[in-house]
Amino acid sequence: MIETPREIAQLIDLMARLPGLGPRSARRAVLVLLKKRGTLMAPLAQAMAQVAVSARECAVCGNIGTNDTCPICADPRRAIGQICVVQDVADLWAMERGGVFKGRYHVLGGTLSALDDVGPETLNIPRLVARVAAEAITEVILALNATVDGQTTAHYIADVLAASGVQITSLAQGVPIGGELDYLDDGTIGAALRARKRF
Amino acid sequence: MIETPREIAQLIDLMARLPGLGPRSARRAVLVLLKKRGTLMAPLAQAMAQVAVSARECAVCGNIGTNDTCPICADPRRAIGQICVVQDVADLWAMERGGVFKGRYHVLGGTLSALDDVGPETLNIPRLVARVAAEAITEVILALNATVDGQTTAHYIADVLAASGVQITSLAQGVPIGGELDYLDDGTIGAALRARKRF
Repeated sequence: MIETPREIAQLIDLMARLPGLGPRSARRAVLVLLKKRGTLMAPLAQAMAQVAVSARECAVCGNIGTNDTCPICADPRRAIGQICVVQDVADLWAMERGGVFKGRYHVLGGTLSALDDVGPETLNIPRLVARVAAEAITEVILALNATVDGQTTAHYIADVLAASGVQITSLAQGVPIGGELDYLDDGTIGAALRARKRF
Repeated sequence: MIETPREIAQLIDLMARLPGLGPRSARRAVLVLLKKRGTLMAPLAQAMAQVAVSARECAVCGNIGTNDTCPICADPRRAIGQICVVQDVADLWAMERGGVFKGRYHVLGGTLSALDDVGPETLNIPRLVARVAAEAITEVILALNATVDGQTTAHYIADVLAASGVQITSLAQGVPIGGELDYLDDGTIGAALRARKRF
């Protein structure tokens, strides 16, 4: 009975593949787009088409930008001695929002995962090893998720880079700012206690 | 510190204006799009641009389609005697999913609202009156939301159409299928009791 025109149905199907949108919310989003054809739909389609063409991975670090070298790698004010290894561009953006890190990044594009058949070659790890060998890197900071896959990947990278003699560090684990002990999991409390420091 | 390229930041801003997506989930959606540039982003941009150009309101009922007359109005199998008045295209789609109604629709494009300064002229009401006068309409079914604005609009339309002598009905109110009395509001229980029928 549903007589949604084919083109609109196809648009809804594509929208429903975005994270956070299911079939129902994709339909709602498309209805809003249809109402705002001139002010939202056309500009959004154009912005998307433009980024689809212009976006590319940074040849140095794997970050996504609109040039062959991303704005961070191209920025002369960023410290060249420190590389922060992150899983994904989303994590790089999260680090940048923190605004504390002044060095450069290396985006792996995932984590090692036996289940999903992701090995070191699929990730950006060989290029990291090459950077450490070629650039004047003094410290590699592993900013990977505190999950099993994230920590497996961290250990693998530490092993691979051991021969280079570069200093390898990782993010501190502990109580998050604003966190209440009562709501923290046991693992975090244990880690925070082991890593306690003089007050 | 955030060095998101301008084009990507603009895409995130536009995505964040969709219902159900905030700034954070828009960023996540754009990251997925960036990862699937070829398989998702490019087709989505194209589908959106195409619909932005081809979508138009049906000249008869106000439904959105890709022709001047929507598929429902153009379908000779739909009963021509019944018009179902709905607030928005979303409601029309909801009615069609129900699959019970075999007539045609009239989409108001909103409800009367003193607060938002929406009067009868802004809505599709004059065209409804013209349709009732010109077509062989026997029944106008008011399928408007059971909200204050929806019911105000229903009463207004009933008043306007009173002179035409057409039969005016509205959706039944009562316990929804699968509904548990314990969770229903008092208004619905009262309405269902008043409209009780022989078992």
